[in-house]
Amino acid sequence: MADYTPKKSDKFTFGLWTVGNIGRDPFGDPVRTPMTPEHIVHKLSELGAYGVNFHDNDLVPFGASAQERDRIVKSFKKALEDTGMVVPMATTNLFTHPIFKDGAFTSSDAKVRAFALQKTMQAIDLGAELGATTYVFWGGREGSETDAYRNPVDAIKRFREAINYLCDYVIDQGYNMRFALEPKPNEPRGDIYFPTVGHMLHFISTLDHPEMVGLNPEFAHETMAGLNFVHAVAEAIEAGKLFHIDLNDQIIGRYDQDFRFASENPKRAFFLVKLLEDSGYDGPRHFDAHAYRTEDEEGVWAFARGCMRSYLILKEKAQKFNKDAEIQGLLAEIRAEDENYQGPSASDGYSREHAQQVKDYKFDVTALSQRGRKYEELDQLVMELLLGVR
Amino acid sequence: MADYTPKKSDKFTFGLWTVGNIGRDPFGDPVRTPMTPEHIVHKLSELGAYGVNFHDNDLVPFGASAQERDRIVKSFKKALEDTGMVVPMATTNLFTHPIFKDGAFTSSDAKVRAFALQKTMQAIDLGAELGATTYVFWGGREGSETDAYRNPVDAIKRFREAINYLCDYVIDQGYNMRFALEPKPNEPRGDIYFPTVGHMLHFISTLDHPEMVGLNPEFAHETMAGLNFVHAVAEAIEAGKLFHIDLNDQIIGRYDQDFRFASENPKRAFFLVKLLEDSGYDGPRHFDAHAYRTEDEEGVWAFARGCMRSYLILKEKAQKFNKDAEIQGLLAEIRAEDENYQGPSASDGYSREHAQQVKDYKFDVTALSQRGRKYEELDQLVMELLLGVR
Amino acid sequence: MADYTPKKSDKFTFGLWTVGNIGRDPFGDPVRTPMTPEHIVHKLSELGAYGVNFHDNDLVPFGASAQERDRIVKSFKKALEDTGMVVPMATTNLFTHPIFKDGAFTSSDAKVRAFALQKTMQAIDLGAELGATTYVFWGGREGSETDAYRNPVDAIKRFREAINYLCDYVIDQGYNMRFALEPKPNEPRGDIYFPTVGHMLHFISTLDHPEMVGLNPEFAHETMAGLNFVHAVAEAIEAGKLFHIDLNDQIIGRYDQDFRFASENPKRAFFLVKLLEDSGYDGPRHFDAHAYRTEDEEGVWAFARGCMRSYLILKEKAQKFNKDAEIQGLLAEIRAEDENYQGPSASDGYSREHAQQVKDYKFDVTALSQRGRKYEELDQLVMELLLGVR
Amino acid sequence: MADYTPKKSDKFTFGLWTVGNIGRDPFGDPVRTPMTPEHIVHKLSELGAYGVNFHDNDLVPFGASAQERDRIVKSFKKALEDTGMVVPMATTNLFTHPIFKDGAFTSSDAKVRAFALQKTMQAIDLGAELGATTYVFWGGREGSETDAYRNPVDAIKRFREAINYLCDYVIDQGYNMRFALEPKPNEPRGDIYFPTVGHMLHFISTLDHPEMVGLNPEFAHETMAGLNFVHAVAEAIEAGKLFHIDLNDQIIGRYDQDFRFASENPKRAFFLVKLLEDSGYDGPRHFDAHAYRTEDEEGVWAFARGCMRSYLILKEKAQKFNKDAEIQGLLAEIRAEDENYQGPSASDGYSREHAQQVKDYKFDVTALSQRGRKYEELDQLVMELLLGVR
Repeated sequence: MADYTPKKSDKFTFGLWTVGNIGRDPFGDPVRTPMTPEHIVHKLSELGAYGVNFHDNDLVPFGASAQERDRIVKSFKKALEDTGMVVPMATTNLFTHPIFKDGAFTSSDAKVRAFALQKTMQAIDLGAELGATTYVFWGGREGSETDAYRNPVDAIKRFREAINYLCDYVIDQGYNMRFALEPKPNEPRGDIYFPTVGHMLHFISTLDHPEMVGLNPEFAHETMAGLNFVHAVAEAIEAGKLFHIDLNDQIIGRYDQDFRFASENPKRAFFLVKLLEDSGYDGPRHFDAHAYRTEDEEGVWAFARGCMRSYLILKEKAQKFNKDAEIQGLLAEIRAEDENYQGPSASDGYSREHAQQVKDYKFDVTALSQRGRKYEELDQLVMELLLGVR
Repeated sequence: MADYTPKKSDKFTFGLWTVGNIGRDPFGDPVRTPMTPEHIVHKLSELGAYGVNFHDNDLVPFGASAQERDRIVKSFKKALEDTGMVVPMATTNLFTHPIFKDGAFTSSDAKVRAFALQKTMQAIDLGAELGATTYVFWGGREGSETDAYRNPVDAIKRFREAINYLCDYVIDQGYNMRFALEPKPNEPRGDIYFPTVGHMLHFISTLDHPEMVGLNPEFAHETMAGLNFVHAVAEAIEAGKLFHIDLNDQIIGRYDQDFRFASENPKRAFFLVKLLEDSGYDGPRHFDAHAYRTEDEEGVWAFARGCMRSYLILKEKAQKFNKDAEIQGLLAEIRAEDENYQGPSASDGYSREHAQQVKDYKFDVTALSQRGRKYEELDQLVMELLLGVR
Repeated sequence: MADYTPKKSDKFTFGLWTVGNIGRDPFGDPVRTPMTPEHIVHKLSELGAYGVNFHDNDLVPFGASAQERDRIVKSFKKALEDTGMVVPMATTNLFTHPIFKDGAFTSSDAKVRAFALQKTMQAIDLGAELGATTYVFWGGREGSETDAYRNPVDAIKRFREAINYLCDYVIDQGYNMRFALEPKPNEPRGDIYFPTVGHMLHFISTLDHPEMVGLNPEFAHETMAGLNFVHAVAEAIEAGKLFHIDLNDQIIGRYDQDFRFASENPKRAFFLVKLLEDSGYDGPRHFDAHAYRTEDEEGVWAFARGCMRSYLILKEKAQKFNKDAEIQGLLAEIRAEDENYQGPSASDGYSREHAQQVKDYKFDVTALSQRGRKYEELDQLVMELLLGVR
Repeated sequence: MADYTPKKSDKFTFGLWTVGNIGRDPFGDPVRTPMTPEHIVHKLSELGAYGVNFHDNDLVPFGASAQERDRIVKSFKKALEDTGMVVPMATTNLFTHPIFKDGAFTSSDAKVRAFALQKTMQAIDLGAELGATTYVFWGGREGSETDAYRNPVDAIKRFREAINYLCDYVIDQGYNMRFALEPKPNEPRGDIYFPTVGHMLHFISTLDHPEMVGLNPEFAHETMAGLNFVHAVAEAIEAGKLFHIDLNDQIIGRYDQDFRFASENPKRAFFLVKLLEDSGYDGPRHFDAHAYRTEDEEGVWAFARGCMRSYLILKEKAQKFNKDAEIQGLLAEIRAEDENYQGPSASDGYSREHAQQVKDYKFDVTALSQRGRKYEELDQLVMELLLGVR
């Protein structure tokens, strides 16, 4: 068996809020004592993680004085230095405080929108100070339970204004920072605006600085809506917009579960890891998940180890897939007809003559219809690879 | 009570395949005899519809000779002329024939991709001949059951090549025609590429001729994935991309049901009609639905009448909403704080000085947090309006 | 228009935890200040409610002394007496405290199971003292996130032991009290045991005292799994097991939303009210819902009023349905064939001769297949009744 | 590696309709030529299957003459004899023919109900003649799209009358046959009555001959509603009602997919196989699944082989789980506290004195709350076992 011990070069990161999750849920009180950021940094480093990410208020409490902030940041920096851990990503908490109960950038109250802007600029400063080069926006409260009071068109416009403004801010400050937007379909709002990777990709194309804004897709978020996360990530990759990624697991059609990576459906996780590795994605592999509420601190670290080990196991399987003679032979056989076709095709580009050639081309419809695709055989080989019996 | 009898000016349309649905399903044989297109045109016209739409093979059977095609088209044109019915939209059937079992434009077989191109150009010619100015693409077979054999990135590229090619074809032919893409998350494939309105909007932004390509969103398709269709249509409207719309109803998380418009959830339908009417959308209101399998032909026409009546009832309610003194008063109250805000905001645009003003602005966080939004009261007024008791 | 002001005789009840919900969610802190039970009782009474229900810890904090308990109970009783409000139902909180993080009656730790038993007996005493004749069991923590550690067969057996024991306790104490079990498919656990009305009904049939145990079905809980709540309640009614009911609203396939009754889908709510009223159900109409998190206290009371008004509006519509000449005429037409059939049927009861008659009977398969059922027409009439335009 | 070649003693069965599925779907025509039952029997036997199951009309066409029936049965029997294949289960097709468009046993037309009874008795005779000892009832059309016309209470009563009648018929005929009811939540009807294993188990408890009626749960059917199939099967086992089982795979919240066993989520399949094997279930392992529509006949047999191989692979892993020292050690550690508890518990049985002991027992609530359950560690070990890296 291979060694699945994570190394810094694997670029595994966790949020302070993930391993630091205290196990409060809608029906239950906390089950774990808060850990200090410094403790988290040291423990994650020991386990082989590369870095740690945070919301402003994971580190600095809401409403803290400048003095308190500086003291906290200094202590946190020391922990980073002592361990060699980095902060690749930071973000703003625009959802916990009651002021955001009806949204932040899309709130129906202009004061709240302005406050969200203020809070975010301060949080960007904090992120920049700690070296974050990716800044995430998850608009958890940007949504509604009824469409009686806010035209969703206005929500789109307001969100765009805010992101455009903040792009200008980052450029003006000279920060080495890109934005990564994170969609989610619902929870904690009945419906959240820009619910999927697709909606966010389109939104980005309408911004003033689309080049500095990309995606932070999350496995659980697309999966809640029953969408194929691998397809979503592929669309982001094809658009050059996969700036960051949130790895976890989730059952379709449920509350936000944020399970340990690959723990609910290892096959879906396998195709994701394969896509990331094959595509050359070299950003952080960020686990936005948390331990079951049944666990104490020891269970939290078992959870963190499990996330990283499962990624490495699946990465190894992706490499095996690419070298497995039977699988590759079958793929070659499946692709042979495709590659041998000599007739006119859309990839030739359009011309009037070419269109006529396409119209005149004779296809053997019966033969094409009858040809089996061998996908059952191929998929079963994948399953057996995944289950470790080949 | 108002009169809810549809008029041509309401722009209600049906597909030949909708009222013509014969009630076959995965577990059952047909329950209704096919009707001729001419009969459908006459009956819909009598009921007050504005037009009729079709897939190429709804009118001309797959593989028909040129002679047969011309005979069919002539007879169909006469029915249109006799009734004053129009054909605002046409589309290609790229899903029924076994040749498309693994996709059309994204098939893993280059011959099938080329055949899909050929068939679509012929179908575009047919649509143009019959006056269609909107051409719909629903890629029902463009998907997968396993991601073992096709990189979804390739699927995106292939779909783009095809649409670019066909845009050039339409331009070259001088047709007065725009494309409307129709996303769907799954069924008949396990997962379909470009599963939602968001994914399609983004895809359009990457085309050679984005200006001539828009959306044909369908209520049932977004709803299958549990997404808020009103938000999706709003995003399309904001982007200037609502070229056409498919109206029906659907329960979340189920097989494709295509129920009578507004029959499952009249509240969701109400907000949709309100958005369409308030936004000034003036395209066809197309019902892509079909009668329950329990119905005979008489039931089919009851179904068609019901779709149109419900739209008109909800349209009247949308107008009442806009005039209801209590509702409008409450909305004004809700919006007052927002409109009275004088401080700096993202909509002012960015400057370094402005950012500093935002950072320095003092917000009364407690007051903003405590303010109730009155959405329960407002939403209840909407419900009572909808239920006809105010 | 009718008057939709609730009266005590309408038997509307709320839980202390519903209007008392402070708006905490997995991503946000509380937005409302706790109200005293006495304040809730007075306000609900003013609004026309009949009674109020509670979990032990809604009234008496976890771990309170006997003295403190008695003081609280005395004050609460006075509020009930002052207002004429009753307590038809009580229940135990077996989910908030960390001790229940892995379940109560099905916990993998025998000590926790015994503690749950202790806490429940004390809570039953409290309920009895306050006059509750229905005692609800919602096993929110009785479930799992992984099936690696607990055989679900053991969970069933443990839950049965606990309920049997507590039945004996109630009998032995001479309390005038029945049990009502409340199923839920998931949240806060990944999967909860006995996830639907069906599973609970079967479980009841395996108890020592099935006659004293029935159901407390909740609209949101069946709906989360996409099941038809009306069918579920019908099954409970047919079995004589509808002991109590939790009314609210919910979108399929989402986190537990507990929306205002009838606010998401008034059609589903209509058929439910119709079933309850037609069946002669005379228990409490309990609203297990809460106000949006955007609301202050005023919004909470708007929410409570809305729940009751919507019920009364739908009740009036159910009465209209039963008197509407066109609807009833169509129903009679639909049922005529059924009622006129004279041949052998299963309801005659089995005999060898009868079976032979059934086997020999000649059916006109073609005629039976072709007959339309007129359900589109009927359902459209229902929609128009619901929308108040007939 | 072990050998995963199926043997007759593994008791793997397929329906004629599964490998015989011709790939028609709601949007597409058939892609495969029908195979004869005899060919299916021979091929399945070669692959190592134990038996084959059928609906009456899989073998004998609807409306066939007695002569034709006898000829078909004779030829089919010969194929069984030639191969040693058995028919453990048979069932009635009460869903394909238009006569059943509004249900069979619950139809609103008494003639249709009687015809369903007639057809089922004939099909039971056919099943008995071919040796089937389990007779399955899947009421695919027993449901509704609107609740406007049929009281669901009536549907329950009608279904009960039919099953009671047919039990009497089987007893009277002296057939060695038990019934197995198969629930499904929806599709092809909007909502199907008795949607889950729980609803059916309860229904059985209300029959005249509950002892001869059990369950045929299907993986895809519970999973469509997002329910945990392992828990459902456990409830059936605990009730002594697991008479048969349908194995396949399915994505939550989608159309009925009937994928190859274990191909979507091998972890869920693993816990199922483990439960079946650990519980001593010795009935057939029936695959109610079909090949992707992309496949030709060769792909169908690859599919069938894959179902059986995956079961055997997971069975081997279940055995490894039970022998893995680290897993078993961790389980023992998790269970130690539970097993060492000496205080009073519900399993002691109720007495007044015992209840007082429970009430007086002192629990260390803090210690019990803080104890970690080690489920993350355990579940990760399971994942690594499943992925073949331990």
